[in-house]
Amino acid sequence: MSILKEINSPSDIKQLPRKELLRLAKEIRQRIVDVVAVSGGHLASSLGAVELTIAMHYVFDCPKDKFIWDVGHQAYAHKLVTGRQQRFDTLRKYDGISGFTRMSESAYDAFSTGHSSTSISAGLGIACAKHIKHDPSKVVAVIGDGSLTAGLAYEGLNQAGDTHKDKDLIVILNDNDMSIARNVGALSSFLSRTFSAKRLQELRREFGDFLKSLPRIGDDVYQFAKRSEESFKTFVTPGMLFEAFNFEYFGPINGHRLNHLINILTNIKYLREPVLLHITTTKGKGYPPAEKNPVYFHGCGSFDAETGKCLDIKKTAPSYTQVFGRTMVDLGHNNEKIVAVTAAMPEGTGLVEFARSFPERFFDVGIAEQHGVTFAAGMATEGLRPVVAIYSTFLQRAYDQILHDVCLESLPVVFALDRGGIVGEDGPTHHGLFDFSYLRHLPNMVVMAPMDEDELRRMLLTAIKYEQGPIAFRYPRGAATGMPLEKEIKSLEIGKAKVLTQGRDVLILAIGRPVQDALAAQKILQQDQIEATVVNCRFVKPLDNELICKLAQEIPHIITIEENTRQGGFGSAVLETLADEGITTYQLKRIGTPDQFVEHGPQQFLREKYGIDAAQIVAAAKAFHRSAVTTITSRSQPHSVSA
Amino acid sequence: MSILKEINSPSDIKQLPRKELLRLAKEIRQRIVDVVAVSGGHLASSLGAVELTIAMHYVFDCPKDKFIWDVGHQAYAHKLVTGRQQRFDTLRKYDGISGFTRMSESAYDAFSTGHSSTSISAGLGIACAKHIKHDPSKVVAVIGDGSLTAGLAYEGLNQAGDTHKDKDLIVILNDNDMSIARNVGALSSFLSRTFSAKRLQELRREFGDFLKSLPRIGDDVYQFAKRSEESFKTFVTPGMLFEAFNFEYFGPINGHRLNHLINILTNIKYLREPVLLHITTTKGKGYPPAEKNPVYFHGCGSFDAETGKCLDIKKTAPSYTQVFGRTMVDLGHNNEKIVAVTAAMPEGTGLVEFARSFPERFFDVGIAEQHGVTFAAGMATEGLRPVVAIYSTFLQRAYDQILHDVCLESLPVVFALDRGGIVGEDGPTHHGLFDFSYLRHLPNMVVMAPMDEDELRRMLLTAIKYEQGPIAFRYPRGAATGMPLEKEIKSLEIGKAKVLTQGRDVLILAIGRPVQDALAAQKILQQDQIEATVVNCRFVKPLDNELICKLAQEIPHIITIEENTRQGGFGSAVLETLADEGITTYQLKRIGTPDQFVEHGPQQFLREKYGIDAAQIVAAAKAFHRSAVTTITSRSQPHSVSA
Repeated sequence: MSILKEINSPSDIKQLPRKELLRLAKEIRQRIVDVVAVSGGHLASSLGAVELTIAMHYVFDCPKDKFIWDVGHQAYAHKLVTGRQQRFDTLRKYDGISGFTRMSESAYDAFSTGHSSTSISAGLGIACAKHIKHDPSKVVAVIGDGSLTAGLAYEGLNQAGDTHKDKDLIVILNDNDMSIARNVGALSSFLSRTFSAKRLQELRREFGDFLKSLPRIGDDVYQFAKRSEESFKTFVTPGMLFEAFNFEYFGPINGHRLNHLINILTNIKYLREPVLLHITTTKGKGYPPAEKNPVYFHGCGSFDAETGKCLDIKKTAPSYTQVFGRTMVDLGHNNEKIVAVTAAMPEGTGLVEFARSFPERFFDVGIAEQHGVTFAAGMATEGLRPVVAIYSTFLQRAYDQILHDVCLESLPVVFALDRGGIVGEDGPTHHGLFDFSYLRHLPNMVVMAPMDEDELRRMLLTAIKYEQGPIAFRYPRGAATGMPLEKEIKSLEIGKAKVLTQGRDVLILAIGRPVQDALAAQKILQQDQIEATVVNCRFVKPLDNELICKLAQEIPHIITIEENTRQGGFGSAVLETLADEGITTYQLKRIGTPDQFVEHGPQQFLREKYGIDAAQIVAAAKAFHRSAVTTITSRSQPHSVSA
Repeated sequence: MSILKEINSPSDIKQLPRKELLRLAKEIRQRIVDVVAVSGGHLASSLGAVELTIAMHYVFDCPKDKFIWDVGHQAYAHKLVTGRQQRFDTLRKYDGISGFTRMSESAYDAFSTGHSSTSISAGLGIACAKHIKHDPSKVVAVIGDGSLTAGLAYEGLNQAGDTHKDKDLIVILNDNDMSIARNVGALSSFLSRTFSAKRLQELRREFGDFLKSLPRIGDDVYQFAKRSEESFKTFVTPGMLFEAFNFEYFGPINGHRLNHLINILTNIKYLREPVLLHITTTKGKGYPPAEKNPVYFHGCGSFDAETGKCLDIKKTAPSYTQVFGRTMVDLGHNNEKIVAVTAAMPEGTGLVEFARSFPERFFDVGIAEQHGVTFAAGMATEGLRPVVAIYSTFLQRAYDQILHDVCLESLPVVFALDRGGIVGEDGPTHHGLFDFSYLRHLPNMVVMAPMDEDELRRMLLTAIKYEQGPIAFRYPRGAATGMPLEKEIKSLEIGKAKVLTQGRDVLILAIGRPVQDALAAQKILQQDQIEATVVNCRFVKPLDNELICKLAQEIPHIITIEENTRQGGFGSAVLETLADEGITTYQLKRIGTPDQFVEHGPQQFLREKYGIDAAQIVAAAKAFHRSAVTTITSRSQPHSVSA
């Protein structure tokens, strides 16, 4: 009989005898593997947090007590025991449950997550609010060791440990010595250094005995020796760091020993101060393929649950990421000034090969986008050409650094924004739908988007050659077009668009991947005798003002299309240009995502849903055509009244 | 005879006998006080760093060796000894030298600064670049204890201490136990805790003697005792924290003992690893009024150099900041859910009184804007109504947190952006010219700007009453209009603009302070028989689409005015709305700052220079009028050809 099936809410866990909890853990693991094998998702982290999840729900009283799962990708077990097991097979599917925690999905999700390192700050906010409201319930933030590299986490720790106010917060550091990639930074080496210091732990015990064996030489020295013993303790455990932040530190303890976990959480529960519990877990725990290859199973596609073998059909076309990565290596051989910066995503951004080829010129700064950008700015002042490769959505975190540390002095830093546009199953926290808008208004910035992988290569070369200032290009997640690549990479002229087809009825100004949609629409429209001029605009900034204004005067029915929010994006830039040039005799339809968050679901499905596709262009062009016909007809009638 | 006058570059300092350096320090202090007494500026920090500056230039070889002054407001002495003393009296004046470091101003300024906590990241970038180029010169980053609270600084420390690569970087922690306001957070209390631990320092010495006096009991214990001594050392000095980050730690030493400083810098210079030198200084050192009141003299206006008495003419009108602060207190009494969050700016944001009245509901998170926003989001999930008061330019650092942690779930967090628009003498790093653009494209966000202080109060009330999601309002630096305030504060209807004057010739859509310019322009235009409709738009988002579209159809000559960049701002929002509604028969002139950084200078001067004023509106309206007259004339002629 299944125990999991009987768990409708956390209170059902509390009814179970402790030994049954182990069976529950096993069933939860099995369910997670079975579902993720089909749907894809963040397998390894969630498997590592099964015992922790059970222990937390056993000891605390969620949702009165608040749990905040940092990033949220380790919360599958939490979802299974909080009333979502029936729907669990809809994980990451359109209209199904999210791959992260969502307040709007469940009262058991205390905070919506997706980006790293927010849990301590949010948890502290909740704890302070509870304090004000005299609500004695608890707040538990669970954060991985990788997430601790972000400054946001540190800022949260720093305020939590401030002694000026009561801060009743439990932080659980789920330490698996690996975030998405190998952990980087001093903190990580510090954690592992102190871990392996078994010898020092033994010495500590010896020291205790030694002290006890000493004759009492005088109170001062005795007092001193006691103090010293304490200081030694903090030195040889990672607690040192957290105790510096006024956290009461416990650990490290094995995060898969359920009984032990329950006991320690039960004790900690009654403390009324900032507490840090350090647990060690194994990513992928209990599923051998994931334990063996946690990087692959961090966020994976579908696989055979039995063997762990990847089931994704081999794509014939390489991904944009792969093309970018290979081109970086090619260009890196010819230009020693190129250095690459990534924020914990050497695999995700395709820079692994560059890192292997040019280890001295590759910098993984950890989950620290702000620092990565300012660090790159520093390198640019020395004449190097840094390429900062960060997903569009994560680069949001470095908005001020781009503006203040790069654009202000127009430093030549290259920004390669992977995952621009709709990314699919990871949903609203991961879509790259704001970058045109947040980059376009920055002085000195150039913003590009390629229509295909060949143009991606050209844009990378263009960016590296561009010495006057910062330059960014963004490209989609997933497979590129599969086109043959030109042997020689040719750079582009800054601010120049390219007319792809000529037609007098409608002007389609497209940027990035949707240029493909525009070309498809042009063919469809041709069948209805509507002739379209399709322009691959290439540059969001600077726009090809001259070309766009000239064409807009010739073809006053204009459609702009971009895979970005309509607010302040590419279409908005076109409107600004036309207004500035005093061109008014046109009608313009802006296609882009609406002023709302786009949910999770398959990329192509969402593109269709939000009309970032050929069909929408065709519909808009036909609407223009109809109104034009009507106007001509009405004009040809005598005595027509027009305002 | 003046020594300072003979210092044309740092090499002249190296020629001086050491005892002359003390005289130089005195002269530099005098010069700084004399100039800042007239120009205003960051006095206290710069006075505190005089000896450090001399020592650095004495020991290192700037500009080959790179100095990065965090924030840059302590770099006045550095400016004086690097060829800028002749121009030093132009400090912060238009066309004069900047109040911060600027690469474009001097080769001795290795990085442009203004926002906090960038120095370690930029310095590390420069150090890594030097390593790649086999350039053995040095990099020194000077950072205050306040700046260390920002996550960016921590991210930089973390990468610098990564053991995987050579990192030849010197960080000087200039510790004056006070950033702009009282330091907050665990880190600060940690630094001061260990500081005052003189008794422990003594004990440490005693322990050394004690160990030496012991008979050797066995190698293990002896080894152990040595280790323990080391651990004790790290425990009783702040070095503990930095050594956890793999920094070689020196200090704390008195940062005003010039000889000592020179000696230690000379030793440190030859280390090839991350080094942290911890010095303690006194803000305002050597100028008693500033030593006594370092908060006032952090960034001050003009004063009497002799007495330190403020010379600013008492403004008759209160500042927007004051009105905001008082209103917060008023509303705080009636609504216990209101909590206030600021990032190291209780004085600057006017929240001091709120903090006094409601200490439990006030949170100064330190220089940690990212955390402040996510922390507020956490409080909002518990039903509180957080008001996050952060300068427009500094809130840039929390762009991702606003988007991801607040807007995604539409949490009711109120953002009060002080220093919106042109701020004046602090220049490009401090103007608030991007907020309309970076806030407007965020889903679920409401964005407002008041035309005067009474409307500021109404917007604050409106924001607090608004439960559906995040809402922001931004207001100018400096004196408000001085109008009498309404006794009762009335909230506004979301998304509703207000028509202030009616006229058929030109439509002026204004937002924020420039509504005053629009009203002034309307009066001037009236004298030329040009009748203007002036609309106080109040909302950048949601726009009052209905009203704007109706008026645009009636009055097709439209001027938008905002004190924000023209790219993606308010005017751009108006263009989007008109295009979406298919309204095309208009001409529109967008007034706002151009697509470039705005330099430092007096507020009003810069407004005039960039045309954010009545004159520019009048000119635009007259240009419309002329073209309209021409059109009418040409139309009235028979056989005229029109396209």
